[in-house]
Amino acid sequence: MEKLEISEIFNAAAVLKNVARKTAIIPAPKINPESEIFLKTENLQLTGSFKLRGAYYKISQLTDEEKSRGVIACSAGNHAQGVALGATHNGIKSLICLPAGAPISKVEATKGYGAEVCLVPGVYDDAYAKALELQKEFGYSFVHPFDDPKVIAGQGTIGLEILEQMPDVQAVIVPIGGGGLISGVAFAIKTLRPDVKVYGVQSMGAPSMAASLKEGKLCHLNDVSTIADGIAVKEPGVNTFEMCNEYVDEVVTVSDDEIAAAILALIEQQKLVAEGAGAVAVAAAMFNKVPVKGLKTVCLVSGGNIDVNTLSRVITRGLNKSGRNYTFIIDLPDKPGQLSGVCSVIGASGGNILSVTHERINSSSAINGCTIRLELETRDNNHIDEIRKALGEAGYKVLN
Amino acid sequence: MEKLEISEIFNAAAVLKNVARKTAIIPAPKINPESEIFLKTENLQLTGSFKLRGAYYKISQLTDEEKSRGVIACSAGNHAQGVALGATHNGIKSLICLPAGAPISKVEATKGYGAEVCLVPGVYDDAYAKALELQKEFGYSFVHPFDDPKVIAGQGTIGLEILEQMPDVQAVIVPIGGGGLISGVAFAIKTLRPDVKVYGVQSMGAPSMAASLKEGKLCHLNDVSTIADGIAVKEPGVNTFEMCNEYVDEVVTVSDDEIAAAILALIEQQKLVAEGAGAVAVAAAMFNKVPVKGLKTVCLVSGGNIDVNTLSRVITRGLNKSGRNYTFIIDLPDKPGQLSGVCSVIGASGGNILSVTHERINSSSAINGCTIRLELETRDNNHIDEIRKALGEAGYKVLN
Repeated sequence: MEKLEISEIFNAAAVLKNVARKTAIIPAPKINPESEIFLKTENLQLTGSFKLRGAYYKISQLTDEEKSRGVIACSAGNHAQGVALGATHNGIKSLICLPAGAPISKVEATKGYGAEVCLVPGVYDDAYAKALELQKEFGYSFVHPFDDPKVIAGQGTIGLEILEQMPDVQAVIVPIGGGGLISGVAFAIKTLRPDVKVYGVQSMGAPSMAASLKEGKLCHLNDVSTIADGIAVKEPGVNTFEMCNEYVDEVVTVSDDEIAAAILALIEQQKLVAEGAGAVAVAAAMFNKVPVKGLKTVCLVSGGNIDVNTLSRVITRGLNKSGRNYTFIIDLPDKPGQLSGVCSVIGASGGNILSVTHERINSSSAINGCTIRLELETRDNNHIDEIRKALGEAGYKVLN
Repeated sequence: MEKLEISEIFNAAAVLKNVARKTAIIPAPKINPESEIFLKTENLQLTGSFKLRGAYYKISQLTDEEKSRGVIACSAGNHAQGVALGATHNGIKSLICLPAGAPISKVEATKGYGAEVCLVPGVYDDAYAKALELQKEFGYSFVHPFDDPKVIAGQGTIGLEILEQMPDVQAVIVPIGGGGLISGVAFAIKTLRPDVKVYGVQSMGAPSMAASLKEGKLCHLNDVSTIADGIAVKEPGVNTFEMCNEYVDEVVTVSDDEIAAAILALIEQQKLVAEGAGAVAVAAAMFNKVPVKGLKTVCLVSGGNIDVNTLSRVITRGLNKSGRNYTFIIDLPDKPGQLSGVCSVIGASGGNILSVTHERINSSSAINGCTIRLELETRDNNHIDEIRKALGEAGYKVLN
């Protein structure tokens, strides 16, 4: 591609000035006490992610003739919403191809920002093929989600903002899917402040850029699977791969469990909702994946568009892990008064019953016995142990 | 009390300049499309709530002799954390009395900000009595959570920030518990910009200020019950009551269901975590409780310290309401292959099974039958109807 110039990123910043929010950088002292961690909150950007920046800037730079024909994009996620709002703000038409199974909430959000939506039977690749077909037929401009210098320049404005908002920053940690975000941010930062470290983070379930950098050439992954669906990309871009190779200090990976822990930490400690992709930089800082000990470090929280069902599961998993939710399984003789007895022990111990399943027929219990499962709200793992002990002392047989 | 002067609020702002974050004001276009809604994000304040401001300012204004003896406060919530951090920042000792049953997370957070914690057997009133006793015995300064002019002046700095950050604001909506926050904010705004409307919001389950203003005298409520525990206050302060009477345009109330809907909307649309008390202003705007149609309106999101178990329940309730979670109850003949048949119908309809309970003994089912309960993730209420229809067409008897 044409070589990106730093002047283009300053130009993008000027274009975006009254469009994108200059999102706050917020201290996050508990994420990793050995570093000074801050969050660049692009989850609080309009549309709920940074994607608006690149999409808007790309669209703003089209010729009048291109603008008159409108733009097309393919995405089931944040890029769709960024392109939709970017096009609407520029007063032009946008058409977004989505796989037909896309969550209704994303379809509605995309329509809500003013795009026309084309639901394509099949999966993402089918929607992508359809988008290319429509582009050729009607002459729309295609807005690539990451491998386009204008899009990269738009995302790079985040790098400028970080340097302006926190001149003494020492390291920046950035999520990587296709690589558009980190290419822009790393290029801006390394051009202006080569002393600042830039680290990239991928999900272990979709490490296409990490693998490509290691191999020294573009790698294509056949299967990607991660709760960070926003960065589940099978192959980096040609341009983004080159830019990461040149400007990024190191790329690391984090597991789904680490990502879930980071999402929960952001909720509890920072009162911020992040999607999986948005939380990987924080996960890398929490779990010491990057060498930022003692450094003033900005984690880029890239987006917050998490499905609420997924969020609910992440929270439940987190509650289990931290001992604030526990399911006891107890063997009882099958005679009247047993359940009441168990419940009164639990009540006296301060456990709050969420659900009860009482099973009479169960191969693991005695022939005249039964099994109950009690799901409780608890304070912590010590509290669970206290309740288990109280049940044992009252003569109940706790199986777990 | 001594009459509060606007100069004192400017003084508080100067004292807090390098202590409290100047939290962002963020657009919230979907909360109520008939108004222009913005959020003042004090949930992103250090300690997760605005309480730091008043506590810090109060402590900073003590004499050296008072400071040397330390401060005491009584709270199981945000005020405890505000006082703890305020005292630590001022380099003085703090002792916080908490009822012994307080959530371990709040106790730990308070200790984490540097306070000494005194766990008092009993409820809040017992902890309060103990705090007064210790204050007398050791000469600590008592930091009241709301009915103190210095505390009110500290909270009032939020009013100054709103006017500075959004000079064309037309209305401000503020949560009310004891009334310290709104007293400071309304005083600052009405003194400088009497044209800006200031509305207060309480929970229907704890409407002590609303009732007091209506009666024209302080009312004491014997019972308060609401998910907005941060504003579950039985009686307003003497000073805050007078200030609300003078400076607040109207006080309205919202229900727990409305508060829960506001919490969920903040998560989904704004990527922000609010506690119940923090969401009441947004609830008032969402459900048209205040006359702000067409006005540029700031809702004060006062805090984000919500217990994760509570958050999980609010989300689950919201998922149920919006059709993204449903439990089918189905009567089946008790013979092999039935469950598999049901599951394949559900799978083909795109429902995702979360849990299955299969009961053979059930008074409502036929003697040779059984009942299954299937908890599903679904897309919306239409999707639930589609699945119900598909089950019916396949010959299954859906009971709900």
